Amino acid sequence: MTYREEIDSIVDQLLFDKKFNINMADFQNIVIEGMGGSGIAGLIFSEIYSGKPLVVLNSYHCPEFVGKKTLFIALSYSGNTEETLSCAREAKEKGAVVLSITSGGKLPEISDFTIRIPSGYQPRSSLGFLLMPLINTIAPGLRKNIDEIIKNIKSIRKSEDEIDSIAKKIYQSGKVPYFVSWSPTASVAYRCKTQFNENSKMLANAGFLSEINHNELVPMGMNHEQDPFIYIAYENSFSDRNSLRLKLTESLSGREITKVKLIGSNAFAQIMYGVYYGDILSYHFALLRGIDPEDVSIIEKLKAELS
Amino acid sequence: MTYREEIDSIVDQLLFDKKFNINMADFQNIVIEGMGGSGIAGLIFSEIYSGKPLVVLNSYHCPEFVGKKTLFIALSYSGNTEETLSCAREAKEKGAVVLSITSGGKLPEISDFTIRIPSGYQPRSSLGFLLMPLINTIAPGLRKNIDEIIKNIKSIRKSEDEIDSIAKKIYQSGKVPYFVSWSPTASVAYRCKTQFNENSKMLANAGFLSEINHNELVPMGMNHEQDPFIYIAYENSFSDRNSLRLKLTESLSGREITKVKLIGSNAFAQIMYGVYYGDILSYHFALLRGIDPEDVSIIEKLKAELS
Repeated sequence: MTYREEIDSIVDQLLFDKKFNINMADFQNIVIEGMGGSGIAGLIFSEIYSGKPLVVLNSYHCPEFVGKKTLFIALSYSGNTEETLSCAREAKEKGAVVLSITSGGKLPEISDFTIRIPSGYQPRSSLGFLLMPLINTIAPGLRKNIDEIIKNIKSIRKSEDEIDSIAKKIYQSGKVPYFVSWSPTASVAYRCKTQFNENSKMLANAGFLSEINHNELVPMGMNHEQDPFIYIAYENSFSDRNSLRLKLTESLSGREITKVKLIGSNAFAQIMYGVYYGDILSYHFALLRGIDPEDVSIIEKLKAELS
Repeated sequence: MTYREEIDSIVDQLLFDKKFNINMADFQNIVIEGMGGSGIAGLIFSEIYSGKPLVVLNSYHCPEFVGKKTLFIALSYSGNTEETLSCAREAKEKGAVVLSITSGGKLPEISDFTIRIPSGYQPRSSLGFLLMPLINTIAPGLRKNIDEIIKNIKSIRKSEDEIDSIAKKIYQSGKVPYFVSWSPTASVAYRCKTQFNENSKMLANAGFLSEINHNELVPMGMNHEQDPFIYIAYENSFSDRNSLRLKLTESLSGREITKVKLIGSNAFAQIMYGVYYGDILSYHFALLRGIDPEDVSIIEKLKAELS
């Protein structure tokens, strides 16, 4: 499988139907722990589900409240992420039910229940495998428009000229891309930032409306010649106020913001549309730079030094 | 009161002793909502308290789970922040107990209980007033080393030459400061970023270990000539692994990272040390640029356009 095929496989991954056999009524709260390309599935889930208090962690340690009424879910593609192992061990000691979604490693030994996902992918290319068991188990109603989501995602492939032109615009600017979005699709901006980091080997930034209006708007409106950023916004259809804020941010700051409209009938659909759009954008950007989008060997070097 | 005196008043604000008369046993979970300079108090509190599930919001809308067992706390210095008013109204409709900490505005009308804090400050200079009622009410044990914290903060004033030299280093680099920290002091990096935005009118970035090791390390190790950032880390003493990661991030990426050691006997102490250090750093930076650190008139313009 080529790396591009790995990226495109998200379509099939959305049909991944494994789920945990647990009773959600047994739990008062949920903690989802995961780092980097694995952790993003927890961040996305936290934007489409809020039926119980849900804390997303990217940390070595568990909060104090974790106990018997906590459903703790560890996401680690490799199953050997040291932060996630540390956190899952603490959760287990505190009496939480520990679930894990992983392709292998030591994580299953600590877990009460494990869903095994296919190996051989980059963690960041396994988002569907990591995300769907959360949905299938905790919020199965969100599966109802999977067909629509798959159709929308596939339609992005017909817009690759448009995506390539955005990649070229960023590339030719020589600037650092700054991705903006807002709840319930803020995760799209963060995902796109990390995909630029890993696929395109590019520094990138992510910011969220309306929060940035309360601080970052100040320098955006000044020092244009010193601004190292080029702004790209993923615009969802769920907040008229934030859509208006995006326009006012542009006019008051005097900055041009490239807008990508997210398509889909609910937050889950628009997030997945934005995720795939950003994945393809970062892939095109890597090709423009003549860089291997798959290679992240410096992260492997760090892991070797830490072990 | 000069703006510098406003910044320095954090010392006295830590002695602010108002609290809500509620019984914490009545609540299963806590939601703290706030934007910008008001919201930061919620973010800091979430790093020093984890006795119950706590969700920090910067949003127009409440999560579904909010109900009678939820303690909802609205932080808005003005009392008229539209996101916070919207969120507090939703929480009230869902049956939550709504507390507010504010200097005035419409927020008290929606709230079950309100703590009034002094008016006439910039929201970002009222952090102690916004934070201490959270501590006094929910986690009063954290007050035990207030004297130590005040002593540590005051000692920073003796290091203003060192702080000024860091400000000059950033200024002379012509680069955008990128502040790094990690749990339980990640809020220090974010606070410092926003203080550079508002006080210094400077773009700035914030990132958190170990998460950035899983993505941003890749571009940090390449394209040095294109890197618009200068890196400053607030190093707490609570995670040997993250301290090691900071060193390895530096050596593997070939980037120089200026380190500020956070001082204090617990997370609360080290956070407040870092907050005041960053406040002074951003203030010195504004002076270097010949800019009024108090003025954020573009945010007022935005609010006028939105109303």
